[in-house]
Amino acid sequence: MSQLFVRTLREDPADAEVPSHTWLVRAGYIRRAAPGIYSWLPLGLKVLQNVERIVREEMDAIGAQEVRFPALLPREPYDASGRWTDYGPNIFRLKDRKGADYLLGPTHEEMFTLAVKDLYSSYKDLPLALYQVQTKYRDEPRPRAGILRGREFVMKDSYTFDIDVESFRQQYAAHRAAYIRIFDRLGFDYAVVSAMSGAMGGSASEEFLALSETGEDTFVRSPGGYAANVEAVRTPRPDDLSFDDVPAAHVEDTPDTPTIASLVAVANERFPRTDRSWTGADTLKNVVLMVTQPDGKAAPLVIGLPGDREVDLKRVQAQLEPAEVEVFDAFGDYPALVRGYIGPQVLGEESGSGIRYLVDPRVGVGTRWITGANVNGQHVVDLVCGRDFTPDGFIEAAEVRAGDPAPDGSGPLELARGIEMGHIFQLGTRYADALGLRVLDQNGKLVTVTMGSYGLGVSRAVAAVADNTCDEKGLAWPRELAPYLVHVVVAGKDAAALAWATELATNLDDAGVSVLLDDRKASPGVKFADAEVLGMPSIVVVGRGFADGTVELRDRRSGERHEVGLDDALAEVVAAAHGRPHLEVAEGS
Amino acid sequence: MSQLFVRTLREDPADAEVPSHTWLVRAGYIRRAAPGIYSWLPLGLKVLQNVERIVREEMDAIGAQEVRFPALLPREPYDASGRWTDYGPNIFRLKDRKGADYLLGPTHEEMFTLAVKDLYSSYKDLPLALYQVQTKYRDEPRPRAGILRGREFVMKDSYTFDIDVESFRQQYAAHRAAYIRIFDRLGFDYAVVSAMSGAMGGSASEEFLALSETGEDTFVRSPGGYAANVEAVRTPRPDDLSFDDVPAAHVEDTPDTPTIASLVAVANERFPRTDRSWTGADTLKNVVLMVTQPDGKAAPLVIGLPGDREVDLKRVQAQLEPAEVEVFDAFGDYPALVRGYIGPQVLGEESGSGIRYLVDPRVGVGTRWITGANVNGQHVVDLVCGRDFTPDGFIEAAEVRAGDPAPDGSGPLELARGIEMGHIFQLGTRYADALGLRVLDQNGKLVTVTMGSYGLGVSRAVAAVADNTCDEKGLAWPRELAPYLVHVVVAGKDAAALAWATELATNLDDAGVSVLLDDRKASPGVKFADAEVLGMPSIVVVGRGFADGTVELRDRRSGERHEVGLDDALAEVVAAAHGRPHLEVAEGS
Repeated sequence: MSQLFVRTLREDPADAEVPSHTWLVRAGYIRRAAPGIYSWLPLGLKVLQNVERIVREEMDAIGAQEVRFPALLPREPYDASGRWTDYGPNIFRLKDRKGADYLLGPTHEEMFTLAVKDLYSSYKDLPLALYQVQTKYRDEPRPRAGILRGREFVMKDSYTFDIDVESFRQQYAAHRAAYIRIFDRLGFDYAVVSAMSGAMGGSASEEFLALSETGEDTFVRSPGGYAANVEAVRTPRPDDLSFDDVPAAHVEDTPDTPTIASLVAVANERFPRTDRSWTGADTLKNVVLMVTQPDGKAAPLVIGLPGDREVDLKRVQAQLEPAEVEVFDAFGDYPALVRGYIGPQVLGEESGSGIRYLVDPRVGVGTRWITGANVNGQHVVDLVCGRDFTPDGFIEAAEVRAGDPAPDGSGPLELARGIEMGHIFQLGTRYADALGLRVLDQNGKLVTVTMGSYGLGVSRAVAAVADNTCDEKGLAWPRELAPYLVHVVVAGKDAAALAWATELATNLDDAGVSVLLDDRKASPGVKFADAEVLGMPSIVVVGRGFADGTVELRDRRSGERHEVGLDDALAEVVAAAHGRPHLEVAEGS
Repeated sequence: MSQLFVRTLREDPADAEVPSHTWLVRAGYIRRAAPGIYSWLPLGLKVLQNVERIVREEMDAIGAQEVRFPALLPREPYDASGRWTDYGPNIFRLKDRKGADYLLGPTHEEMFTLAVKDLYSSYKDLPLALYQVQTKYRDEPRPRAGILRGREFVMKDSYTFDIDVESFRQQYAAHRAAYIRIFDRLGFDYAVVSAMSGAMGGSASEEFLALSETGEDTFVRSPGGYAANVEAVRTPRPDDLSFDDVPAAHVEDTPDTPTIASLVAVANERFPRTDRSWTGADTLKNVVLMVTQPDGKAAPLVIGLPGDREVDLKRVQAQLEPAEVEVFDAFGDYPALVRGYIGPQVLGEESGSGIRYLVDPRVGVGTRWITGANVNGQHVVDLVCGRDFTPDGFIEAAEVRAGDPAPDGSGPLELARGIEMGHIFQLGTRYADALGLRVLDQNGKLVTVTMGSYGLGVSRAVAAVADNTCDEKGLAWPRELAPYLVHVVVAGKDAAALAWATELATNLDDAGVSVLLDDRKASPGVKFADAEVLGMPSIVVVGRGFADGTVELRDRRSGERHEVGLDDALAEVVAAAHGRPHLEVAEGS
């Protein structure tokens, strides 16, 4: 400790939002260099390297081969795949001295596809799995939470190449199993959920989420085992209803009803139902959004959904990627849109307005609605979908609520939050098509290679584990990730104690147990506090009891302490470092 | 081999200039992604990681602590040190989505200085040595030779922090010794030479050069042990000469003598010496260069040197960094400069022309010259330095020649070429001053920290070792760097041979000897050729002799072969893999 490049800080970083950020900075593991960009100090780097080692071991175990691609990448392959445009402002772009365009790689589908195209040509060469542990870049609009959402970060990304979907499924399953082993070894709680694949393309994907109340990702799960990112939840579509008996739509005066609540109140007062009261679920709310394509073209989109549901912009965004979605604020430019009284009668790509109109899956054929009449102060009643209006299509735009039925019928959904730690995708042939990766099959015919893509946040995992394991005193590492297994605190100024502790540290080192020796000339209180902040799993205190022939052995996570005799100390500490219970009966507290 | 992501190529890469580039590409170790930017395929990455491991072991052994800084760096610290400007077009620059300026780090003096400033405040915290193994960027004007001079590359850079120069010297010595151990382990020939520190600043530095006829760096050495980069050679300055007896300068007509050779011929004809003939060494050649400062300001500089010497632009560049030096081609703008007849009489910052005039150290006070008279067709004779003209200063601009005396009197210099593999610098207080890194000394006074900076080309070492060890058949790795120690070739279609070879490979693996098994359905010729191209140190051929109970063990570098019995094979191969001589008497060729 007297030589280690570390200083613990008493103050939380000003921008800290999550405990991992607070403690990794206060414990001197990381240091901010710029927004979303961090330096790894010696203790932090050891944790990061431990994560890297675990990831490499498990990837090697499934036969994936490690490679390392550049971070600085030429524009051309990303043009061919469309991602140069699709990523919009989310990637870092630059020009070299000759004016050629480059980017800092966010992921490497294109480069891996081209490498395999370069070297391979036959079905005999497949299956193939390649991976790298590499520094990646994304120009996040709001970098936050320290290394949890940074702009420069370390990822493990792998890519699989198969002759057909059958073979791909086996590789996908092997990767999925490897991820489970990795996350089990990292030692935190996580969920595997169905996911949208976002800008990556492809047709199936799962996310590994670290459970965290402060996580940015919301997911749902059911008692029957359904689990999905909210973006991926598919709302069951009702069967078509008969509307033979529904009266013709009729316009009613509904003054001062720009909101659903005011509309329901007026409806129940002016044209009450006989069987029950009107509720928000009987109204069709039409929400206008502005959608901007990657090429910069913007157009309004109206989304119709039951009035008792809100639009979830993240879900909408996920459906419409790579387009960007914003709140609409240009009613002046679109006279067809009467704010507060919008109805589907004037909407649709083939209508006079030409404005695209998508509806929630609950708005099925035969459903009847109270909705805007496109006139200030008027609504229309008994407007039937499929009879009085036809949307341009469906969209998953409504918020998912606790209690909603799981799409697979496995029971009501509950909501939880997490941090995306891994994401595995079926890419299909998107990149192989775009970049021409084809091989000869057994019949001598050229077939396009089926690909998978598998990301894992290595630097993010350091933060996620820290979040999952820290307490109010500081970090508390699981053994596989700890920078050192044992922290020896020399409390007091006794030269014999320091000499004994130094010998213990040497013996632990020789026994293959990594150890951090606090040999500083500091008060016992400062040393104890630092040991708790730094978070090594086992703490040995050479202190008051030393004169009587004992030292104290503490477990950082449980707080358990017991005294051990000097002669037994080495064996006891080695046992504790390996996570085994202590050998003798606890004599201390 | 049937699963390894590798393909050997029959054709040299079109842009290959050096053997390492040719063979690393042809053997499928690396793959070009963009000019000066390469991907590491599985075999190449293993070599790179071996170099990284050796470097880490030796840095850890001298107590340097590993950290990892970002590659994407904010502009501000580089503005404070002046390097944002000094680097000119040699760094990659970019803006983030908010328009803030960033660069891709070429080296990290600024960031390390700031990190230490952040955490440390006292002499008690020092000495400190930090290092990182990290991806770096330089926008080379002419990326070439594969990974030898790339634009994205892996470097080990370390930085030392000391309270005074005395303490710094110890850290410098420890680093120097660690570098010698690293380069010895890498197993190639190198020289340690005095060097200019270039854009890094500071006052003393040494380079570690891999000896290579195709190297970009020229260095000199003397029988007495002097060794220096040509940029760093200091020409001895002669003592001042008396010029009391020298006649006054006199102008002579010398029509059609724009070159030194023509001038010498005319001089010997028209105004011959009595004691000997005039030679080029009697003439003072004045060469005009255009010098552009980092801020873009350009001005001519005239360099005077003996006519029998050429200007070495790299030496000039090294003296004038960070300014850029180019050939001058703007005589029209400077009427004082009469092309072919320039003389010092009209030069100097205090002359009418204001043009800066520097001379070679050999142009000492009292030396007499034939030189231009600044009139077309005329030269001046007996022009004496210190009497008839006074230069603005001296510059090391003349080429260094084999046979020149070593500056330390250790004998005549010989010239050799090499590749810069490492560079260790005394930075002094340049960065600490610029960024305010000061600590309290023992007397409670703030003192500026003394720094050192130590670079080592990790990816470049892979190429340098390849260059140093390859032959006309392919790569031939030293054991510490080889991707696998043993390459087992199954020659022929005998199922028993394949089974035996597979078992041998498994046993080698169990014995801790890494092994590559060529189990492909390919001809023996293809397999032998590939084994030579790929370059593992030991090759086992399970072929013709197998039926008679023998296999052949080959040494890739020496080409030695001998047959070993099947029962002895495991022990023999393990011994060979560890570099020990074989156990039994060679029976084969």
